[in-house]
Amino acid sequence: MKRFKNRDIIDINDFPREELLYILKIAKKFDPVFVKKDRSNYTIAQGKIAALLFFEPSTRTEQSFRSAAQKIGMGTIGFNDPEATSIHKGESFSDTIRIMDAYADVLIIRHPEAFSAKTAADVAQIPVINAGDGPNQHPTQTMLDLYTILKQFGRLDNLKIALVGNQKHYRTMHALSAAMFKFSNNKIYGISPKGLEMPAEFKHANYFDEPIDMRKLNRKLSEIKPDIIYAGRIPKEYMKGDVKKYSYQIDKETLKCLPKSTVIMHPLPRVNEIDPEVDASPAAIYFTQARNGLYVREALLTLILGRI
Amino acid sequence: MKRFKNRDIIDINDFPREELLYILKIAKKFDPVFVKKDRSNYTIAQGKIAALLFFEPSTRTEQSFRSAAQKIGMGTIGFNDPEATSIHKGESFSDTIRIMDAYADVLIIRHPEAFSAKTAADVAQIPVINAGDGPNQHPTQTMLDLYTILKQFGRLDNLKIALVGNQKHYRTMHALSAAMFKFSNNKIYGISPKGLEMPAEFKHANYFDEPIDMRKLNRKLSEIKPDIIYAGRIPKEYMKGDVKKYSYQIDKETLKCLPKSTVIMHPLPRVNEIDPEVDASPAAIYFTQARNGLYVREALLTLILGRI
Amino acid sequence: MKRFKNRDIIDINDFPREELLYILKIAKKFDPVFVKKDRSNYTIAQGKIAALLFFEPSTRTEQSFRSAAQKIGMGTIGFNDPEATSIHKGESFSDTIRIMDAYADVLIIRHPEAFSAKTAADVAQIPVINAGDGPNQHPTQTMLDLYTILKQFGRLDNLKIALVGNQKHYRTMHALSAAMFKFSNNKIYGISPKGLEMPAEFKHANYFDEPIDMRKLNRKLSEIKPDIIYAGRIPKEYMKGDVKKYSYQIDKETLKCLPKSTVIMHPLPRVNEIDPEVDASPAAIYFTQARNGLYVREALLTLILGRI
Repeated sequence: MKRFKNRDIIDINDFPREELLYILKIAKKFDPVFVKKDRSNYTIAQGKIAALLFFEPSTRTEQSFRSAAQKIGMGTIGFNDPEATSIHKGESFSDTIRIMDAYADVLIIRHPEAFSAKTAADVAQIPVINAGDGPNQHPTQTMLDLYTILKQFGRLDNLKIALVGNQKHYRTMHALSAAMFKFSNNKIYGISPKGLEMPAEFKHANYFDEPIDMRKLNRKLSEIKPDIIYAGRIPKEYMKGDVKKYSYQIDKETLKCLPKSTVIMHPLPRVNEIDPEVDASPAAIYFTQARNGLYVREALLTLILGRI
Repeated sequence: MKRFKNRDIIDINDFPREELLYILKIAKKFDPVFVKKDRSNYTIAQGKIAALLFFEPSTRTEQSFRSAAQKIGMGTIGFNDPEATSIHKGESFSDTIRIMDAYADVLIIRHPEAFSAKTAADVAQIPVINAGDGPNQHPTQTMLDLYTILKQFGRLDNLKIALVGNQKHYRTMHALSAAMFKFSNNKIYGISPKGLEMPAEFKHANYFDEPIDMRKLNRKLSEIKPDIIYAGRIPKEYMKGDVKKYSYQIDKETLKCLPKSTVIMHPLPRVNEIDPEVDASPAAIYFTQARNGLYVREALLTLILGRI
Repeated sequence: MKRFKNRDIIDINDFPREELLYILKIAKKFDPVFVKKDRSNYTIAQGKIAALLFFEPSTRTEQSFRSAAQKIGMGTIGFNDPEATSIHKGESFSDTIRIMDAYADVLIIRHPEAFSAKTAADVAQIPVINAGDGPNQHPTQTMLDLYTILKQFGRLDNLKIALVGNQKHYRTMHALSAAMFKFSNNKIYGISPKGLEMPAEFKHANYFDEPIDMRKLNRKLSEIKPDIIYAGRIPKEYMKGDVKKYSYQIDKETLKCLPKSTVIMHPLPRVNEIDPEVDASPAAIYFTQARNGLYVREALLTLILGRI
């Protein structure tokens, strides 16, 4: 296992199975479900600064990182203005990274362009965390998804996962699919409207395409009996022809078609994919999933600062 | 007296007399006027996070809360962008609250709609502080007003208060009026242009309407001899007919009409209601009033986090 | 030497030679180049609040101050919105300062108008740091420039400095020129296009105007053999007639014309003044210069809070 101190967190595929499990094990130390008493985490990284460079806004991810950093005692700086890219008239991306590198101990970068986080990591002396580089990667989202599954089932093996929605353009589903095949005997079912199936590079032997008219979702789910439903949006720009075939909502009727132990995940924000009446069900773990992001990010910051 | 730990702070009317007095007593512990030596308040809530959800901007209130939270050692997250309501396309208010609830230990919410803070409190697991819900309530403003009066006079009883300005539409005056009648023998005089008198639900037996042509303000004040003048803006949209009747300014001439012990309060920002030449007078306590907000907010955060 | 505690930092000219040297000596205590082990600087000012009042945005300066403040344990509040000046409809500049004065322990102010920081200092009870008041002053920039020179050469005397660019309108060059003449035997060469020479009030006996067609920059530099090149932008609005005479870029060819020991400084951001291929040269110290700003600002905050 490579050292975590000073390591860049760019792509989920950079982390083999045992490294992922190690990160998740450390995340448990920050989760009050596992660690009841006050552990004084705020002393871990006092005097250290996290710079959040959000070249596109992402309130949710930014807030989660800002909270995680401060919970372990760090200060936070940075910007979240889409104008920030041009704020220093004519300044290059590399120069912006180098300056922020001078002011901080960790860079957390969100950028609309693929591979921009890698470029930043090449320029910066301090470690860089990719908080989403356009269509490409958002590794801490995948890690929190894995943590959520591990916390729920006690394992990352022998699971049946139904991905529901747009697998073709969905960064989160690409990465989760690829990551789950690092573990044993997982089966993934891609339930999407026709034409929005998972690209080949993210699939493995146990990936099964299940393109359907989405109005038939409940029937399909009752056949598959998944342990996990991972739902996501289908943006309008990807709907072609009969729009109704793309429409789906997980509701109380859906719950009736599922085993009692099935859980529903969603990276959020949701629009209509999940009826709020489902929220009260024990199957609905999407808000817990968001909460888990905090613990995974606390763990990662602690690890790359060499404080564990 | 109910426990303060984990309690929501939504409406000043939720707090009986003895609870208000208890909050003000705790606030004194954060006020350098009463506590000279450095009390290391920054250790009170280290590792805890305050999320400031400002669905409408309010620089002053936000800065005061952010300062108070950090003075007791908390980290702060949140947003203050009027666009924040729509930032997650299509996300519901409840979902936004639930997500921020996952990232923080206290929610401080400002929103243009009445009762939105109550809605947030119903959804959130962590305590919620209402930092202004449109025309309705802004309880920490009222608490700092009470604290300012108590600090100045040593009592909240037997006081004559002249409210000057627009009592009809002024949240701050509504709540202060209602709160002062929880204490004994206070008289309140509502000095406003005709048509802008206090609504009935905020008045008690000792409330006296004094509608006047505001150019006669000094004469009216010299009759009343108030202990406290509480001044506020009259926005242009409420002026009807002869605009000059709505115009007032407290200036050096006004001071001459008043007892030496009268003080002038204002929730700020002011525009023309108080001449800056008054600022140097000992009667002018409106900047001290703003400063007191810090101590009241430090006290409240400490109480609802159960750290006292 | 005057006490630093509670002192305003408004104008570099307020600081005699020995005070500047003292500030730079304290800055060394925050620079990991000089202080290897973790000094727990974060305990210096815990519980204190820095308010950053950026009436015009300046991401770089703001981030540097926010990082410095938090590195010594302070909390930070403030705004950076150009709209902030009008955010409280009709509120005066003085009132805004007085309110923020109530919420903080140090004010750091950036404003487009000359002498606004002085006005703020006259109103505020707490110390004020000028972070740039339009065309006038930006004293912490000058201090970090001096620190960078001292760190590089071990002295602030007997140096040859070539200012390259627009000396006429460049606040940073004005102040650096004036400051360097507080030390002994420095020679300054102002290399600018004709018409953009340094104004008389910032020059001393050893200041030499060298107006040239900027395409001849390399030849001029090989004549002067400066210890330091301090480069800056020439904004388009100052270019008159043949624009090519204003164009310059320091590149690998320039490096060949210079002594090995010459270093290149730039306040950043750069546009085309320095070719990125120069960055790898040991002569390129402009990113180190930015980094030094952090240590100088940590030192200043520590000094004016009386924590040293």
